[in-house]
Amino acid sequence: MSQPGGTFDIVILGAGSGGYAAALRAAELNLSVALIDKAELGGTCLHRGCIPTKALLHAAELADQTRESEQFGVKADLVGIDMAGVNAYKDGVVGRLYKGLQGLLKQDKITLVQGAGKLVSQDTVEVDGKRYTGRNVILATGSYSRSLPGLEVDGTRVLTSEHALKLDRVPSSAIVLGGGVIGVEFASVWKSFGADVTILEALPRLVAAEDEDISKAVERAFRKRKINFKVGKPFEKVEHTDNGVRATIAGGETVEAEILLVAVGRGPTTQGLGYEEQGVTLDRGFVITNERLHTGVGNIYAVGDIVPGLQLAHRGFQQGIFVAEEIAGLRPAVIDEAGIPRVTYSDPEVASVGLTEAKAKEQYGADKVSTYNYNLGGNGKSQILKTQGFVKLVRVEDGPVVGVHMVGARMGELVGEAQLIYNWEAFPAEVAQLVHAHPTQNEALGEAFLALAGKPLHAHA
Amino acid sequence: MSQPGGTFDIVILGAGSGGYAAALRAAELNLSVALIDKAELGGTCLHRGCIPTKALLHAAELADQTRESEQFGVKADLVGIDMAGVNAYKDGVVGRLYKGLQGLLKQDKITLVQGAGKLVSQDTVEVDGKRYTGRNVILATGSYSRSLPGLEVDGTRVLTSEHALKLDRVPSSAIVLGGGVIGVEFASVWKSFGADVTILEALPRLVAAEDEDISKAVERAFRKRKINFKVGKPFEKVEHTDNGVRATIAGGETVEAEILLVAVGRGPTTQGLGYEEQGVTLDRGFVITNERLHTGVGNIYAVGDIVPGLQLAHRGFQQGIFVAEEIAGLRPAVIDEAGIPRVTYSDPEVASVGLTEAKAKEQYGADKVSTYNYNLGGNGKSQILKTQGFVKLVRVEDGPVVGVHMVGARMGELVGEAQLIYNWEAFPAEVAQLVHAHPTQNEALGEAFLALAGKPLHAHA
Repeated sequence: MSQPGGTFDIVILGAGSGGYAAALRAAELNLSVALIDKAELGGTCLHRGCIPTKALLHAAELADQTRESEQFGVKADLVGIDMAGVNAYKDGVVGRLYKGLQGLLKQDKITLVQGAGKLVSQDTVEVDGKRYTGRNVILATGSYSRSLPGLEVDGTRVLTSEHALKLDRVPSSAIVLGGGVIGVEFASVWKSFGADVTILEALPRLVAAEDEDISKAVERAFRKRKINFKVGKPFEKVEHTDNGVRATIAGGETVEAEILLVAVGRGPTTQGLGYEEQGVTLDRGFVITNERLHTGVGNIYAVGDIVPGLQLAHRGFQQGIFVAEEIAGLRPAVIDEAGIPRVTYSDPEVASVGLTEAKAKEQYGADKVSTYNYNLGGNGKSQILKTQGFVKLVRVEDGPVVGVHMVGARMGELVGEAQLIYNWEAFPAEVAQLVHAHPTQNEALGEAFLALAGKPLHAHA
Repeated sequence: MSQPGGTFDIVILGAGSGGYAAALRAAELNLSVALIDKAELGGTCLHRGCIPTKALLHAAELADQTRESEQFGVKADLVGIDMAGVNAYKDGVVGRLYKGLQGLLKQDKITLVQGAGKLVSQDTVEVDGKRYTGRNVILATGSYSRSLPGLEVDGTRVLTSEHALKLDRVPSSAIVLGGGVIGVEFASVWKSFGADVTILEALPRLVAAEDEDISKAVERAFRKRKINFKVGKPFEKVEHTDNGVRATIAGGETVEAEILLVAVGRGPTTQGLGYEEQGVTLDRGFVITNERLHTGVGNIYAVGDIVPGLQLAHRGFQQGIFVAEEIAGLRPAVIDEAGIPRVTYSDPEVASVGLTEAKAKEQYGADKVSTYNYNLGGNGKSQILKTQGFVKLVRVEDGPVVGVHMVGARMGELVGEAQLIYNWEAFPAEVAQLVHAHPTQNEALGEAFLALAGKPLHAHA
């Protein structure tokens, strides 16, 4: 027999980025919340995703900088990568942020429930025999690392990113199956740490969701870094060898390595949670909602990676905040998915917001779309960092800039400004009349807008 | 007897940031230009200022990162600073940008004249006996490193920043006279390179033009880095010792070191150039203009460091563009000096735009101004970089944010977004509803605005 766990304004199933953001915002709005998760508060991003991978990527950057420091006049020897040390650093960052987050959630308005929850009616989630009833329910159960048919993940030779984050050594060689964000990030880390890396991608290019020019730049940079990649050929199978694995791609070509990372995307965690039984519509596992994130069933909403679209922590944050405000009756503005910035933290870094050139042409017509590429060769700070890349602007005729695409070291930090420009629908002249600090990398954005406004400074028109 | 050098739409005296920007914009607007300088195209910023110092600062960052790499799991030994290598790197960056700039200026519309020019009438500059006449004249002669009474700069023990940039060794110890931008940047470099550094500043705090909280944070960080500084006591004298110099400050306290850098500011280069003779008003050497940068004499304008205000290359760029457009009849919008972003590239880095808390209170009344400090301790990417600091917002009651002040590693890249927010007079809620990528440092700006809008996420209200 199940017992009552209490009645709340909102019951949230899943305490990752989307779930805890909803809980915090709801509490600010004086709503009572039960926040339920079988694992730790913080979810994938904090414990097994964005945060730990970015720590690895920073250690990788430090290793590369040490290797290359002589061209800056700094004499240094890279002795080696101490994976125990790297992991201690990574776990330390996660631990500190986790502690901070626990502090934020520790308040009267939020009841944290640890345990596996299941939707048992349109307003109730049951956890270990206790029933938590909500005037509203938010589904926020996140995602898991996908695999492919014929691929047995064993956690030692064939890994998901969760396993890869716990690796206690630098592999001598690695196959990365998948050239999307997660794949190129791990490929970048392992190469920096000294491994021999090969990416296998079925789509015709790396980071295929990005603008084509960006993919070309990443591929060029990876070639220079001697990161191997094979694109356009689907994976066929993986076999164990004496010392590792052998992957076969369409056409019969094989690659051998010590380990293989499966980075073919993340699927929604929605099975066996009672969603369909309560009438929630699933499409290939994803929860279908309207643009206000309502499922169409009772007062059930969904946020984060289970909702089709970008699987990004900050989208989860924003959706969580949105739904809390929606429930509180604040009628928040619908989130523009294209206005959500995207960063791939590889070396080189990729950052973008808005539409790719191809998508803009699809949407507005090819003759209405123009682009401008500002090469970082003209940007003082990028020269100082010895990085290559560009800022590409996609513009609609006589209209605002609808896409910003950037590649090069540290470009992720420029996307804050880029998303403002995109979301405020700024015309080139409006950005061009404002001053960017010299010498910064964000100046490259300013220069691109100056050029697009017909008044290039450190650039040809 | 002087010869005619030609007649132009604009004659520009000085080919630094302000001058060459004016020339490029004027040429785009189909105006003919004579651009005159006794030294190289590019001026102080490119050859003896921002660019070479930032190259040194990047080498310094690499040295520090190598020293501290073990806490990130990267085992590396810092063998030493190879100043010949550092200088080759620095000169390489300058050389590449110089070459690029020369390429941009090489066009029919712009006549480059190398030589010392003098204003000999309200529309004519004479260079080596040749007279260049302009329908308009722009004064853009820049600035020089100031000294103090009783301070003899000899270039070996007592240096200006120009000498310091050419130093062929890391000094064992250095006194930096002046705790403004240039002073703290050199102090930061030399400390990272292994020198024992002491800053002497007559004002009561380091980076005294910045918000007081920023000064406190820089001082705290410098104490941690063991950069010595003495504030609030004017410099009295410097004497040579057997191995270097001895500086005395008010009260009789002395400091000894191998070298002393004079970093007490930059004065306007306006003497002996005929300005006053032609009726241009000077105030302590600075050229007085109206807000449209007109001197009030004939068609003479002034831009850059000779015009009272921020002595920054990007202000020069913007003023140069402004005057070119003004001459072309485009009636550009007056430049808001407070909207010009400012970056100090020390470790920690400082970046700001708009009013300090003190200035905002002066302008709007103390009871109308509130502030919010977002600590980088809550920012994932800053934790990954292991940097400390904060983003401080200054807001007028029921009004927009009028000041953004940031301190911490890499904060200079966030000022691009900050200046947009300031210049567009955004209300906190307008920024808060937009999404910042996770985990980035620019997310700290987003979090600060969320908190100020009453909906903190990874922060306490």
